[in-house]
Amino acid sequence: MAGIIPSGNTRLFVVVGDPIAQVRSPDVITRLLADRNEDAVVVPMHVASPDLSGVFHALRAVSNIGGILVTVPHKQEAFGLCATTSDRATFVEAVNVVRRTADGWHGDNTDGVGYLDGMEKEGFAVAGRRCLLVGCGGAGSAIALEIMRRGAEILAIHDIDIERRDAIIERLDGLYPGRVVAADANPAGYDLVANATPLGMRPNDPLPIDVSKLEAWQFVACVVTKPEVPPLIQEARRRGCRTMTGAGMFDAQALVLVDFLSMRPPEREVRLKSG
Amino acid sequence: MAGIIPSGNTRLFVVVGDPIAQVRSPDVITRLLADRNEDAVVVPMHVASPDLSGVFHALRAVSNIGGILVTVPHKQEAFGLCATTSDRATFVEAVNVVRRTADGWHGDNTDGVGYLDGMEKEGFAVAGRRCLLVGCGGAGSAIALEIMRRGAEILAIHDIDIERRDAIIERLDGLYPGRVVAADANPAGYDLVANATPLGMRPNDPLPIDVSKLEAWQFVACVVTKPEVPPLIQEARRRGCRTMTGAGMFDAQALVLVDFLSMRPPEREVRLKSG
Repeated sequence: MAGIIPSGNTRLFVVVGDPIAQVRSPDVITRLLADRNEDAVVVPMHVASPDLSGVFHALRAVSNIGGILVTVPHKQEAFGLCATTSDRATFVEAVNVVRRTADGWHGDNTDGVGYLDGMEKEGFAVAGRRCLLVGCGGAGSAIALEIMRRGAEILAIHDIDIERRDAIIERLDGLYPGRVVAADANPAGYDLVANATPLGMRPNDPLPIDVSKLEAWQFVACVVTKPEVPPLIQEARRRGCRTMTGAGMFDAQALVLVDFLSMRPPEREVRLKSG
Repeated sequence: MAGIIPSGNTRLFVVVGDPIAQVRSPDVITRLLADRNEDAVVVPMHVASPDLSGVFHALRAVSNIGGILVTVPHKQEAFGLCATTSDRATFVEAVNVVRRTADGWHGDNTDGVGYLDGMEKEGFAVAGRRCLLVGCGGAGSAIALEIMRRGAEILAIHDIDIERRDAIIERLDGLYPGRVVAADANPAGYDLVANATPLGMRPNDPLPIDVSKLEAWQFVACVVTKPEVPPLIQEARRRGCRTMTGAGMFDAQALVLVDFLSMRPPEREVRLKSG
């Protein structure tokens, strides 16, 4: 696939972010759409927060724009600009993708699905397992929900923001009673140790967990994409653990996003049990 | 040039029109920008008239959008949405392209330049010549101005809309006194016979001039792009005339548009004499 040349018939998908230069989805999603023989292109749009709602509104009027990928810092505000959202986006109150429908933008949040699909590709499934999740912000809470949806036995959550941690535990406990608990940074005994904090992006970041307790039978996953192999993953691999990096999550998520944007029936649609 | 794959750094140019599927500029201008090693892509946006001003306003907020190509039916309304316009766009009160500036959109109208550049590429220059122009709507009036700007001796204008014809003659007479006159459909005696009406697009259209009067020494030009060789051009070629088709105008204009969008110094900037 050498590249595409748009025509008047080409469908557009847009990535909005601020900054925008770092986004990989124009390249990756454009290629995946081309592999599916879609006459479509994904283009970056550098939009500052005060302009987001105006741009969302105006792009509704551009009838060959099929959807918008949403990246930092717009995921929460974009949630509020949707006419409808998936249950999992509603749970997180943030969207990373929206699709055109007759009623307006329909939003979804694929962070959790991408993370879990990426781990499954590395041979790890959460069903019946004991899982430690570190960090329950935007991505973390999406991952927490998806971990429970796929049948983890126990989900223990560690976050330095105790209020945020307890709030998500309470909400998940309403859906999965008695199986979501608070934890600290000690990974001992968990089948999965999942990092959803940005720790590891900067050279002097502390490690998100106490890596001295890691053992070879544990699976370690991380959201960080830069550096490609962050210190947590380095330490886990040194101890013989199987791992998934941020790139693994990104690649798995790209397939989910293409499905969503192509309006193919989603393979996994979260249906939250009513509280 | 096999194609492009956008990245987060890619600059965008947009084509707005209604309908949009027929536009060739995404393909042609994207290739020309790539030939100049610009990391840029031209994408179509299908926008209906009631939404045009909202879209123009919102796209101002997308900082990696460098400009907008404007096609039917938006050229007149887009003129009103510009912060500044070139003298030639001001004369026609229509723009076919706008470029981002600190003050807002800066609009231009390249229809006249494209038509005249296309004829020059076929070996015909208007300086000192006697010219007949048929049709003085949007494209026609831009062509009329450019014909005079490049030094035609006489410009005779035929249009079935007498009021429109006389209005443009009066305005051009203020700039080029005594050299712009009214005419009928008889092409006899003119060095150039230039069609700027859509006649020839539909199978049963009448011919824009009395082709029985054409002679081999005359040059015949036409704005119609579909069919590629409209009846007027067929008849002219049968009589031995040199010709320029709508494709010749389009190709020449594409180079002008790329210059404008790339913010290179325009080769020809119209400076109207003050009336």
